[in-house]
Amino acid sequence: MSEVLARALGAAAEAAEDQVKQLMEFVRIPSVSTDPAHGADITAAADWLAERMRQVGVPDVSVMPTAGNPVVLGRWHHDPTLPTVIIYGHYDVQPPEPLELWNSKPFEPELRDGRLYGRGASDDKAGVLIALGAVAATAKAGATPPVNVTLLVEGEEEIGSPNLSGFLAAHRELLKADLAISADGGIFDVGVPSVTVGSRGLAGVEVTVNGANADLHSGMFGGAVANPIMALAHIVSSLQDEQGRVLVAGFEDGVEPLSQDLRAAVAAVPEEGAGPAALGLTGWWGDPSYTPAERRVVRPTLEVNGMWGGYQGGGIKTVLPKEAYAKITCRLVVGQDPDRVVEALAEHIRKHTPAGVTVTVKPLAGKGRAYLMPLDHPVLALASDAMEAAYGPRPFPVFTGGTVPVAEQFGSVLGMWCLYFAFGEPDNGLHAPNEFFRVAALAQGTDATVRLLYALAQSPEALVPLA
Amino acid sequence: MSEVLARALGAAAEAAEDQVKQLMEFVRIPSVSTDPAHGADITAAADWLAERMRQVGVPDVSVMPTAGNPVVLGRWHHDPTLPTVIIYGHYDVQPPEPLELWNSKPFEPELRDGRLYGRGASDDKAGVLIALGAVAATAKAGATPPVNVTLLVEGEEEIGSPNLSGFLAAHRELLKADLAISADGGIFDVGVPSVTVGSRGLAGVEVTVNGANADLHSGMFGGAVANPIMALAHIVSSLQDEQGRVLVAGFEDGVEPLSQDLRAAVAAVPEEGAGPAALGLTGWWGDPSYTPAERRVVRPTLEVNGMWGGYQGGGIKTVLPKEAYAKITCRLVVGQDPDRVVEALAEHIRKHTPAGVTVTVKPLAGKGRAYLMPLDHPVLALASDAMEAAYGPRPFPVFTGGTVPVAEQFGSVLGMWCLYFAFGEPDNGLHAPNEFFRVAALAQGTDATVRLLYALAQSPEALVPLA
Repeated sequence: MSEVLARALGAAAEAAEDQVKQLMEFVRIPSVSTDPAHGADITAAADWLAERMRQVGVPDVSVMPTAGNPVVLGRWHHDPTLPTVIIYGHYDVQPPEPLELWNSKPFEPELRDGRLYGRGASDDKAGVLIALGAVAATAKAGATPPVNVTLLVEGEEEIGSPNLSGFLAAHRELLKADLAISADGGIFDVGVPSVTVGSRGLAGVEVTVNGANADLHSGMFGGAVANPIMALAHIVSSLQDEQGRVLVAGFEDGVEPLSQDLRAAVAAVPEEGAGPAALGLTGWWGDPSYTPAERRVVRPTLEVNGMWGGYQGGGIKTVLPKEAYAKITCRLVVGQDPDRVVEALAEHIRKHTPAGVTVTVKPLAGKGRAYLMPLDHPVLALASDAMEAAYGPRPFPVFTGGTVPVAEQFGSVLGMWCLYFAFGEPDNGLHAPNEFFRVAALAQGTDATVRLLYALAQSPEALVPLA
Repeated sequence: MSEVLARALGAAAEAAEDQVKQLMEFVRIPSVSTDPAHGADITAAADWLAERMRQVGVPDVSVMPTAGNPVVLGRWHHDPTLPTVIIYGHYDVQPPEPLELWNSKPFEPELRDGRLYGRGASDDKAGVLIALGAVAATAKAGATPPVNVTLLVEGEEEIGSPNLSGFLAAHRELLKADLAISADGGIFDVGVPSVTVGSRGLAGVEVTVNGANADLHSGMFGGAVANPIMALAHIVSSLQDEQGRVLVAGFEDGVEPLSQDLRAAVAAVPEEGAGPAALGLTGWWGDPSYTPAERRVVRPTLEVNGMWGGYQGGGIKTVLPKEAYAKITCRLVVGQDPDRVVEALAEHIRKHTPAGVTVTVKPLAGKGRAYLMPLDHPVLALASDAMEAAYGPRPFPVFTGGTVPVAEQFGSVLGMWCLYFAFGEPDNGLHAPNEFFRVAALAQGTDATVRLLYALAQSPEALVPLA
């Protein structure tokens, strides 16, 4: 180990306690991007982060506007002969609902049993502070980081990064780099590191079904006026069969059959920690033509995220409601065009709308394509070395079923590969009540990131560009 | 016209202004029976009504407990040689939601354009005060009412009168009478009187679908864990075809094919006022084997009154929810047993539950059988005469699609016919926002009820008992 690396790792370890305090402060800001009511919190989170970057010495920090929420950009470029990396993360979080299922308040972080509980603790505020902590530690050890670093932290990841691609396109020169690193994501299991090589895309629609122009008495109009909830049930039911096969024509346009290599790679990933029993299920469910692992990471899906209409209170209300709603999103794989998927959904819904109601299909913000990195790219080996040193076990490649549109966007807009290098764990309760991040993982992630920065400086030939 | 009838009609007319004030006071009490949070308001409404009965001279008034909300009973029995009638109504109301669609607050009654707006104004607080006003007017004119009267006003009609039948059975002696009269219901159209001869029954279930034991990230578990909303959509969709035919085996057990006489009687009712265009619809919808009128009054129906699960907020939330719910109610016709219908629904739902979820079916409180009075019963002629005198046009028999379980219960428990004699109008917004009752209808209804009481006294032979 080089002396400077050792010093940097020491500096990271010394800062560990303060890093926990920083994460608590960061989580305390309810930067929910899905709800416009949280606009001021979004601004507060961006400002807090910019200030934090300045505090650790990042020389060039700005909160940059977009058509939506601002991007916090922290540039530490000091030697044009060194490689340049962009480290990506996001400061926005999912809504905390349902609140009654949280054991502590989502935006009043609590430390319990070595875990820091709070909305966004894992997704992605820990990731952002790990990256910043690593840069700070290397700078402390070597006066400047071992590579030129651009920290790029956006505020719209949880709504699908609608303005990020525009931001990248608008600032090509400023964002010139040899590699992007995503600090948003996670490892295979607690203490079991892995390097993610792909993610799925996203597309979705909100469906509104209207019937009569007012809620009606079911005894007066039942049987003679179409019920929008029933109509919506017919529509939603027609999208997928009971075994999970999506029945929407055109949905899989552009999707290649799974190659044997891909199936083998997916099969090589060990069985997931949070198995069906832990979720209160007797087994996995879904399309029998694929393995559960394939269905979770390399096959497209369709989910109803919400559906509602009529009376939801206690007891009985014999209303024939005037309207009903559904929110539907799909996870996409390489080859699927989100716009084409939205079109296919809209077309199917129009075709399957029963008589007596009118339907409106509105694309949801948050489209993204899938991403897949070549398994033999040399930065994957460097990343694996860094993680192995921090965790012990050798990491293996994994596929994530979630969506980080940024990886695909770094490729399509800026022409660079994006390496996932992140430390969330599958039990962290992402997008669910009681989200948390382990205090120990903060330290391990920072340690691994410090090592990766030095490795990239030492082996610039590994930065094979995107063809 | 007899002198005493003329005096009674005069007394009713003189009291008209005060009757409006009384109705405003009564509406001001938010006696919502579907929501246990309104318990104190239920009590307040019962007490208010009992006090009002005493004020107008009813000699024997009590608020009588049941297993649920109390019954207000006002007895004015003064001559055992006179016929005895029970007049039925209810002081409970539907929930006012959705509040944002009301132009004035539901429990702050407002007079606008000759209408009194407020939840319960028409259903059934006007009905109750019309009956009480008529009794008071006859007593003012003749010292006592022309017949023995029992005012029976319950507080659970909007939840299906679950304790009324028990109350009737427990007080057979106290409730002995020659005829029941229901002050809950309405006439054909504004200024167009009618006498209702039947009502439909009610049965319903609440369906809960459970998947995993927590809300999950659709990117992590989508495709491998069953989605409870999708499962519920499959279930709900299986209950009815797109043309409105109920597909539940056993649902129509006991239902006779419509007789030609019944079809003719239903067809003879003029086309309804609130036609499809007024509801923002291009036409009626439903089972093509029956006319729209038949579907609305003498055919059974199935409606989803509410359905919900997952995220209902703004924007996108890629959650795979843990549970989903639906409330389903059916309107029943003569021959259908509500318990058998609930069983048939539960059986169908169990059979149509897809793999990967568990389902719970809970009967909703508020079951009731359908009711149908013989079209040639002589009290129908007396009722028609009274209405004709008050309104001008000759009333005709109509069928209502709604449920007033009490009519059937007066028959099956107390062995007496129940005459519908009520004054709501179809545009009153029952169970919907902006419910109202016309001030003019208060006066007309009271006038007609005064006339009916004298007619029953004069023609006791018309009180043909239930066979």
